[in-house]
This record gives sequence, structure tokens and C-alpha cells, in this order.
Amino acid sequence: MSVDPSRQSGSSPGAALADPGPVDRPSPRPPSGARPCRFALLGFGTVGQALVRSLVDDPRPELQLTHIVNRDVSRKRVPWTPGTVRWTDDLAEVLDSDVDVIVELIGGVDPAGAWMRAALEAGKSVVTANKQAVAHAGPELAALARARGLEFRFEAAVGGAVPMLGGLRDGLAGDRVRAIVGLLNGTCNAILSCIERTGASFEEALGEARRLGLAEADPSDDLEGRDAAAKLTLLCGVGFGRHADPGGWPCQSIAGIEPVDFIYAGRLGCTIRQVAYAEPADGALAGWVGPALVPASSLLAHVHGSRNILLAAGTAAAQTGFFGVGAGGRPTAVAVLSDLLAIASGARQSCCGPAIPARTRAIEPPRPQRRYVRFVVRDQPGIIATLAAAFAAEEISLEAVLQEPPVRQAELPFVITLDPCPTPALHRALDVIGHCRFHAKPPLSLRMPDDLEDAGA
Amino acid sequence: MSVDPSRQSGSSPGAALADPGPVDRPSPRPPSGARPCRFALLGFGTVGQALVRSLVDDPRPELQLTHIVNRDVSRKRVPWTPGTVRWTDDLAEVLDSDVDVIVELIGGVDPAGAWMRAALEAGKSVVTANKQAVAHAGPELAALARARGLEFRFEAAVGGAVPMLGGLRDGLAGDRVRAIVGLLNGTCNAILSCIERTGASFEEALGEARRLGLAEADPSDDLEGRDAAAKLTLLCGVGFGRHADPGGWPCQSIAGIEPVDFIYAGRLGCTIRQVAYAEPADGALAGWVGPALVPASSLLAHVHGSRNILLAAGTAAAQTGFFGVGAGGRPTAVAVLSDLLAIASGARQSCCGPAIPARTRAIEPPRPQRRYVRFVVRDQPGIIATLAAAFAAEEISLEAVLQEPPVRQAELPFVITLDPCPTPALHRALDVIGHCRFHAKPPLSLRMPDDLEDAGA
Repeated sequence: MSVDPSRQSGSSPGAALADPGPVDRPSPRPPSGARPCRFALLGFGTVGQALVRSLVDDPRPELQLTHIVNRDVSRKRVPWTPGTVRWTDDLAEVLDSDVDVIVELIGGVDPAGAWMRAALEAGKSVVTANKQAVAHAGPELAALARARGLEFRFEAAVGGAVPMLGGLRDGLAGDRVRAIVGLLNGTCNAILSCIERTGASFEEALGEARRLGLAEADPSDDLEGRDAAAKLTLLCGVGFGRHADPGGWPCQSIAGIEPVDFIYAGRLGCTIRQVAYAEPADGALAGWVGPALVPASSLLAHVHGSRNILLAAGTAAAQTGFFGVGAGGRPTAVAVLSDLLAIASGARQSCCGPAIPARTRAIEPPRPQRRYVRFVVRDQPGIIATLAAAFAAEEISLEAVLQEPPVRQAELPFVITLDPCPTPALHRALDVIGHCRFHAKPPLSLRMPDDLEDAGA
Repeated sequence: MSVDPSRQSGSSPGAALADPGPVDRPSPRPPSGARPCRFALLGFGTVGQALVRSLVDDPRPELQLTHIVNRDVSRKRVPWTPGTVRWTDDLAEVLDSDVDVIVELIGGVDPAGAWMRAALEAGKSVVTANKQAVAHAGPELAALARARGLEFRFEAAVGGAVPMLGGLRDGLAGDRVRAIVGLLNGTCNAILSCIERTGASFEEALGEARRLGLAEADPSDDLEGRDAAAKLTLLCGVGFGRHADPGGWPCQSIAGIEPVDFIYAGRLGCTIRQVAYAEPADGALAGWVGPALVPASSLLAHVHGSRNILLAAGTAAAQTGFFGVGAGGRPTAVAVLSDLLAIASGARQSCCGPAIPARTRAIEPPRPQRRYVRFVVRDQPGIIATLAAAFAAEEISLEAVLQEPPVRQAELPFVITLDPCPTPALHRALDVIGHCRFHAKPPLSLRMPDDLEDAGA
């Protein structure tokens, strides 16, 4: 990045973030005579600002920021960016310029996807942190990049700074990955960790996550699993060469999980996490996103707060894992910058995996799974008999009935664990059960996936 | 890899290892018209056999094995390798051939280092799993490869299948890593896990590791820390651009750790692991390898058996981790194959880090560290007073004295924890203390590194 020294004053916000410390890993210089890689930034939000600040504080000679494209430029403009950077709200101006790479940090499916397509068609490589746009249009954008001999990179779209996509694509290229399982949404992990550690209610934990800046005003994409599902689509594209519609994954919300569920999970030797799971299935991808019981001995149980983790079960290497800070401006900017540096160095991507994943369906895994079902009832005789009959009608066997000493007779929680059963049968049984009149709260069913162990969790 | 179908009988050992499972990630085809990448294998031991078996079971069209070089070829030859492969004990024949890549799996500093040099001088790229040869000659081999426009890759030399080097070099290229900490030796981790879990003595745990094939007949390189130190040298070369003599790291053996140490560590909220730590220091690398108290809440404490883990503390991304199976033929072959596939795809390495690390010194970290010192004494009056005086003479303050109920008066264990103190002062005090006559066993001192938290542990 070419920096105007007169702008690099000690009082700049960029300098305030600097932590020069004892590190001086030398940057590779661009080959003498070669000009630096020129890039334009679309979107100057949290990640874009973190990226530019990191380059102001710690210039990389192989990179040069040329344009910042944002709506309402006069409002967005800050004094600490290099003086050579051109601010504009006109994408066409950038596409007509000699920039090598467009960094898309706008977010959302539209117009970001169209803009990335336009960039590739104009001969610019693309780096993005936009999981939704890649989850929708990734195969087409990858094919377009490949046809033009350009790069299309999106490491920042999954796992923040954690190089999950690169680890699957390059690091495990020599293995055949059988399944992946991860905690891919920092908001859900922070909420569930908070309930687990403090006994807060779901609403209190959500409020705390909002106060910490870990949950958005409308957190439904996170809570319902759509955010993790988009990331799962990207991971499957890289890891299995198959791209599922992000809206196709079976998803369950974490809303409704209460402190009492952590008590019962603990009695079962488990805790609760929002898990994303996927494996290749017959011509498709089988997987799901939602709250699940996770063994306390699993590494998943030891990932707290907004951290992310991905575990890959290989055919040769039983278990390989990647974890770290999964969100936030500075960590996400690390992944964007790593992608930019790779392009600047002349690296070619998709070296070890299929460049263009094939579109396929996402399906519920066909094999039966154990389940945890928590009830809160107004106590009366015959409840267990009624429930057992409803499950028996679907040929579902009860594994155990757990009941902690009751607090109030009017709201009596207890848990039934079920032997492995097909998901449709479970849903039919729960539908029948839901019509019973003894519920004080709706029943909550959680997966108890045995196959997490296969995935190395 | 070109495979002779007549050799791929179902009764081959390769077929027996096959696990086709539900995975069919399509391999990238070599560009039409392009010939596959041709490679020769030096050394047909555990890793070499696992590599060839994996290619027999799961051919990669972009790779073709041409030669297997081994001493005493007639003894080593197996019937299940492709018929097109030429067996030889003559390296010169391979260097004169048209192979693109030499895969060095002989191990040891000599002659492997000289052979890799010869390969690069003959215009062949090199892939190796040889940590010792790279720890000694890595910068020279990297410089030679760079000068010739060749690849020199060694992901398999550290962490088995876990892409630690790639993660540091490429994945975290956009950050500045401040420190790394890892469990890099599966033998030590298996022994310490065994003592922790079963209460076995050190000798019993070592015997169990031998029975499981996790410890060699002479495990001293593992126990004394030389194996982990070589890996630490490689990680620092990639992560910090500095290469330390592998023999220069301060190392402490794990021999002498007893079940009682896990009891006291537990009272301190910790467990014990063989840790490797490094950070850039003033013109050098500061670090060490040896047994250390690790907080029970740390992910390091949840890595058991022969698994490895690496944690990197970044300036922007607080903590990023990589873990998995750190040893064994098949996992190590995964990393070798990943490197081969990257070369076959035309990827260029060192894209995001310095290609040739600078040689530097390894030093003991200068800042004071807390310490755990365990004594086993024949009880008599005045022992604590004597010890306290010896520490006081070096201006070392006692933090706490811990004593579990004694078992036998004749062999009384207790622990003193020390406030942060300089390592030379500690060693002088322990030297004085070692001459006291009340010891039933030599005192054991362990690091209690607070900076593991900085490194994200």
C-alpha cells in the first residue's frame, strides 16, 4: 500500500490501533521492477476500515489501495487514509481503471453479487467477505473467474481470521474429508456460553450479547441458523466440491433454550452448542444447523464466546481442527488481507480442490439420530404414559426419562431421551404431542448426534 | 498417478486400507494436454508406503509416481505398487530423469540434506517430511529453490496432517503473529496424558507408549525436547521469518514427572504438557521446549494422546489454532500429498511470507516466569527455612507452599510455587538446593508460563 507519510501522524486512529510489538516478520518485496498489486475497496464499514487501518499502520509494499467506493462518500471520508486513495461512489470508474483486484465488503446478496460479476467481467480479481453472496452465486462467480484466468477468493466469509477454507482446500487436499462439523456463528456461541456460565435466561443472554456488540438489532439470521448455513454451503463447496442452496439446509433456532437445558445436558455428560454439520450423501449433501447436545469431552464444548471452530474428519487423518476468532472487523480484515497478499504474490487458488463446485441439494441425514426432548408441564397423572404412547405410535423407543427435583408443580420440567429415530417420525410424534393440554411451555427437541465423534468432535 | 490395473487386486494391502465411503470430491484434472506431475520417492518406510498406498487406492490424475529409491531394493519391493514404477537404489538415475519433484522421506540430517540439495541443483522441486534436515539446512535449501525457480515444501515435517505451516504462512499472512505455543510431540503428549489419566508412573507410561507404537526404542529426542525444538525452528522460520539453530532452544526433559505432579498441578488449576513456545525477541527468537503447567481451562489441556496443537497469537486476530493427528504414516502422508498436489497445480509457495528466513539465535525469554518446584524429602525440621533462604539469596519470592497429606514420612512430596523470577537466578538457587541432604528425589522445577494466555492458550 502506498502511504502518504504526511497522513501517518501519531494521532491518527490507525496509529492508535498499532501494536508494533516485537514482531518484524519481513514482508516479501514485490519483485524489483514489478508494480504493487493495485486494489479498490467496495464498502467502508467495520471490516473495510479495519483493513485500511491495518495497512496504514503496517504497510505492505506489495499492495496499493487505489479507490474506496462507498455511497455518500462525503459522509464516509476519514482523514487518516492515504492521500493517494481516490474516494468515489461510482463503481464504473473503478472498473475502467487499472486496478487488479476488487475487494467487496458491502455484504448482502444484492447488489454485491452483481458488482462482483461486473468486476470479474471487467478483468478484475475479486476478494470478498460476503458469505451470503458467495453462498448464492459462488459457483457462477468461480466459473467466471476461472474462465477469465482471475482469482475469486472468500476466506473472510467463513470463520473470521481462521483459515478454515484454506485449511480444507489446501491443507487437507491430500486426504478425503468424510464429514465436517463446526461452530460457525459467534453470536449463538456467545449466547449459549452465557446461559451455560451464568444461568441467564435466553432473553438476558441475547441482551448481553447485544451489549457486547456480538448480536445485531435483528439477530434472526444468527439465531435461526441462516448465517451458519451460508457458511456451511461455502465449506462444503471447498471441502466436498458440492454447493448446496444455503436455504436448503435443515435449520433449527436456538431460541427457547433455557438454563434448565444446560442442567439436563450436564446430567447427560454434555453441553449445548449451535452446531453445523455436513457430509457428502448419495448425490447430495446431508447436514443441518441447529442446537445440539455436544459431549463435554469434545473440543466443541471448550470453545466459548464468539469463537468459531471447524473439525474435519478425514479418511487418513482422523481429525483436523481450526479455531479462533470468528467475527469482528480486525480478524475478518486479516483474512481479506491474506487473500490480497496471496493474489499479489501470484498465487493461484483452487490449486488443490475443484475450482467450481457442482450445485446439489442439502438433505436431512437419512440415518436415525438420538434426541433430547425437554418438556415443561403442569403436573398431572398419566403424562409419561401419553408421551410414551405418542412416541411408540411412530416406533420410537424411549432411552431415558430424567427429572431434577421440581421447583414448582405448575411448571415441571423433565427430559426424555430417545433412541436413534428418523427425523420425520420424530416430527410426527412431536406434532401429536404438541396438541396435548398439559404443556406449560412448548416441548423443545435437540439433536444428540453420535456422528459428531466420527467428525472428530 | 498412473496405476497398472492388473496390480490393483482386491487382496492388495492398499485395497485393504481403502475406505471409499461416501466421499467423491472430484479431483482437479490436469489441464487437457498437460502431462501429470512426475515424482520420485526417496525412502519407502512408513510414510512412503502410506503415500503410495493412498495413491493406489485413490489415484490422483495430476500425479505420477515414477521411481522409488531405497537401499536394498530387492528386500523393500512390494507387489502392490504400480507396475510402471521403477525401483532403484541409485539417486543419480532419478536426478538424470525427467521427474519434476523428489519426495524425500529418508529422515535424518545426512545424507537427506545433501540429497535434497542435489535434487534442487538438478532442477527438481523437493517435498520432504524431514524436520531435522530442514531445521539444519532449511534456509539454504529454500534459497537454492528460489534461485532456481523451484518449490521446496515441508508441511509434513511439523504436525503430521495438521496444516500448521500453511496456516501460519498463508492463512495468517494478513496478521502479525506475536507468539506461538504448541504441543508438537505426540510421544510426550501421550505419555503425559497417560500419567494424568491413569496415575501410571513415568516408566509405565513410556512402556505403554512403546506398546502403542507411539515411542521409539530410543525416545530421547522426544523426551528431551529435541524433536519439538526442530519443529519449533520450522514454525518460527515460516511465522517470524527467522531461523534458529534447532540445538539452541532451551530444552527440559519430561523424564521425572510423576503422578504426584498432576495432583499438585490440579490443585493449582492446571495440568502438565510438553510445551514449545517462541516469540520474536530483540534480533533473536525467545522460546523454550519443556514440561510446563498449563491452565485446565486452556485448549492445550484438552489435547490428549498423540495429537498436536499450535496456537498463534496475532496482533489483530487474538488467537488462531490448528490441531489434529500429529504423527503416523497415513496422516503424515496426507501432508506430503497436499504439498505434491499444490506443486502439480502450479501453486507457488512462500507467497505470503519471507521465502528465506534469516538465521538467528534462540534465547531464553528474558522476562521473569513463575515456577513450580516439587520436592520429595526425608522429613526433618527446618527444610522450608533452608529452601526459603536459598531462594531469598537469589531474591526469589515464594508464592505458595502446597502439601497434600503425606503417604510416607521417608518420602514426603511438597510443592513450592515461586513468584516470577529470572531463569538464571532460579538455576543458581536450585543448584544450591540440590546439595542439601534431605532430598529423597531430585527437585523438579516446571515452568508456569503466564504468557501462554497471551499466545491464546
